[in-house]
Amino acid sequence: MRMYDIIQKKRNGNELTKEEINFFIEGYTKGEIPDYQASALCMAIYFNGMTSDETVALTLAMAHSGDMMDLSSIPGETVDKHSTGGVGDKTTLIVAPIAAALGCKVAKMSGRGLGHTGGTVDKLESIPGFKVELPPDFFFAQVNAIGLSVIGQSGNLTPADKKLYALRDVTATVESIPLIASSIISKKLAGGSKNIVLDVKCGSGAFMKTPEAARELAKVMVDIGNKAGRKTTAVITNMDIPLGKYIGNSLEVIEAIEVLNGGGCKDLRELCIVLAATMYSSCFGASYEDSRAKVIEVIENGEALNKLAEMVKAQGGDKGLIFHPENFEKSRYSYEIKAKTSGYIEKMDTEKIGISSSLLGAGREKKEDSIDYKAGIILGKKTGDYVTEGETLATLFTDKEERIEKSEKTFLEALTFSDIKPKEEILVYEIIK
Amino acid sequence: MRMYDIIQKKRNGNELTKEEINFFIEGYTKGEIPDYQASALCMAIYFNGMTSDETVALTLAMAHSGDMMDLSSIPGETVDKHSTGGVGDKTTLIVAPIAAALGCKVAKMSGRGLGHTGGTVDKLESIPGFKVELPPDFFFAQVNAIGLSVIGQSGNLTPADKKLYALRDVTATVESIPLIASSIISKKLAGGSKNIVLDVKCGSGAFMKTPEAARELAKVMVDIGNKAGRKTTAVITNMDIPLGKYIGNSLEVIEAIEVLNGGGCKDLRELCIVLAATMYSSCFGASYEDSRAKVIEVIENGEALNKLAEMVKAQGGDKGLIFHPENFEKSRYSYEIKAKTSGYIEKMDTEKIGISSSLLGAGREKKEDSIDYKAGIILGKKTGDYVTEGETLATLFTDKEERIEKSEKTFLEALTFSDIKPKEEILVYEIIK
Repeated sequence: MRMYDIIQKKRNGNELTKEEINFFIEGYTKGEIPDYQASALCMAIYFNGMTSDETVALTLAMAHSGDMMDLSSIPGETVDKHSTGGVGDKTTLIVAPIAAALGCKVAKMSGRGLGHTGGTVDKLESIPGFKVELPPDFFFAQVNAIGLSVIGQSGNLTPADKKLYALRDVTATVESIPLIASSIISKKLAGGSKNIVLDVKCGSGAFMKTPEAARELAKVMVDIGNKAGRKTTAVITNMDIPLGKYIGNSLEVIEAIEVLNGGGCKDLRELCIVLAATMYSSCFGASYEDSRAKVIEVIENGEALNKLAEMVKAQGGDKGLIFHPENFEKSRYSYEIKAKTSGYIEKMDTEKIGISSSLLGAGREKKEDSIDYKAGIILGKKTGDYVTEGETLATLFTDKEERIEKSEKTFLEALTFSDIKPKEEILVYEIIK
Repeated sequence: MRMYDIIQKKRNGNELTKEEINFFIEGYTKGEIPDYQASALCMAIYFNGMTSDETVALTLAMAHSGDMMDLSSIPGETVDKHSTGGVGDKTTLIVAPIAAALGCKVAKMSGRGLGHTGGTVDKLESIPGFKVELPPDFFFAQVNAIGLSVIGQSGNLTPADKKLYALRDVTATVESIPLIASSIISKKLAGGSKNIVLDVKCGSGAFMKTPEAARELAKVMVDIGNKAGRKTTAVITNMDIPLGKYIGNSLEVIEAIEVLNGGGCKDLRELCIVLAATMYSSCFGASYEDSRAKVIEVIENGEALNKLAEMVKAQGGDKGLIFHPENFEKSRYSYEIKAKTSGYIEKMDTEKIGISSSLLGAGREKKEDSIDYKAGIILGKKTGDYVTEGETLATLFTDKEERIEKSEKTFLEALTFSDIKPKEEILVYEIIK
């Protein structure tokens, strides 16, 4: 078998066999197939797509390119949740404790953030003492004991995906549905959970810019997840508004606690209820309506918040902060951005708002950069709100006073105003099973 | 400027600017742009094509990536000829002396062969003593003195094309009209001649499998050649029949001498007359019919053969062989392939015949391989001929007796027989100016 023939076959619009896809992924992971052939193949896939069978084969090949988590020592319904990313997304911090409080087993590995989107692991590390690296035995034992553990990615998980993603990122071959889908699902397969719930975001701050594109991606992912033997559900959600009002690391933990306390911003609360209900429904076969009621119950009776506190304690963090988030360390400087005109906020470019937060110290520009956990933004107003000149649009938090001016400028560029009240945004478009 | 954005722009179907194309070619030649980005761009070009302006910019950028031959010390009409390759193509050995005998200035650089197609330089080197490496001053002086010199590619000509072609060859991105056209024309521009005549072949033994594909390539090449300031003409010819009857290095020199002596195979003779007439017509503005008559005149009066002998002498070769080709050294073994059935030869797969000849020692499999100049094939029959069982289809010549069996097998696989006389093949489809 020759890589040349595989590229040519895909270029000519023909379907690759499982053997050909395995040959590519194995050879590429080992370094026997060079980057220049892999990038040519990715570009051919960008143009000619992949069939369902091809995408399943690619996903399985990538999942098996490294370690596969074996969760067989955890009895019960394991469930994993994945979000296609977005600014201010702290849903894992909320839905994982809810699902665990409802009896699901959440043995979750999360990533760090790069660029303007923070990662769940970074957010958890903003809780002093919290350990995101646990030996496998401790991880399994914790999930068996309290139903919940969130750790950083350890071991050699999906090395093929890591290598291929880095290549796609510099060769303009990211935006291909089979390549995105196989990248996401391969990681979930390697993660080991029986149930997978996908939060597929669309909008200016997300990979998929339209609901149609997100739906297409969601359908492919659900298809390959199910074909690979995992019960897979996707929720298509809006990313044209930043989720919640808090952006930053400890700021997002604080907002997650608010939601688990029964409060929080309406959009964030609603999305978390939908996702957690979908997780519960997947695990136990309950109807969506019953699942929603269960989710609201464990928020209202405090069990979900207690579950978060249990996890924080089990992983060495300061549990007291969960019940007293006002004790989180604060940034040296806070700065209020005032509205320069009056009107309705028509649009918020969530990507730009992410950059504005990153400038304050909340994100990484390079892998090696360190994060200021306290830094970030609290939004005063969101899309659809009416603003009077001089009102506070947002408050910036940072230790780097000199960054405030550029961050404010970027933030203001992200907003569009209008005299007419914009239509209310749809938050959850569809659930695809 | 970032290579990423250039790949993405082309991937999205937009037109690249001259500046973007220059950035790519300069960066790639210097090694600043990695192969994996270049191959992704080539694949995007394969799918989305290039406009005329883009192709011209790419061609000029590649031409200027290295040395540009300066033929200004050669007064008169310089003319270059290029063939898109093919088995048994010895036209340069015939048309260059004819054009020179008619007053054109032929200062030509030719390549070596790789794979089953022999290069002109290899063929010339089969003449004992013939030097294909000349210092530039000697080269110019020879052209000024006798109107003709054919040498190997020297100096650092079109390094961008060399690098890019090698990459395309292993990433299934060769078959792209703008990439093929820019590769060919960039070399011709760097070669320095004012007039360019292109022999664009189509058929099973050529890059372009159909006359339509060849016509499309020809039009693009003529367009960019003219836009780059060279008078460019293309002749679309058939490569579904091997040209002439001799395949191999010294064998092809012998056949070239036959044609210059007024003999030779009809198809080869006719093609050479067309090409040489086109060269003369381009240089001096004569009508095609008048040009044909002139060409036939210098064949019949022996001036063209004398011109070849002059060049051989000037470049250190044994001039006597040109008038006594029977004195060329012969292979140790000759073997006659006999027809196993009777019938008309319906088709000859020229690519396979090339491989059959290569097996005897006439070609290179790797760049470093040495060539047996004497080895090759003389065809007894060609497409359209009637063969009786037991008749000689071809004679193989080699020093390696053990290769004969495989060569014969490959040769026979190349032939298809029929009871019905096949339609006569068209040799020259069209001339495009």
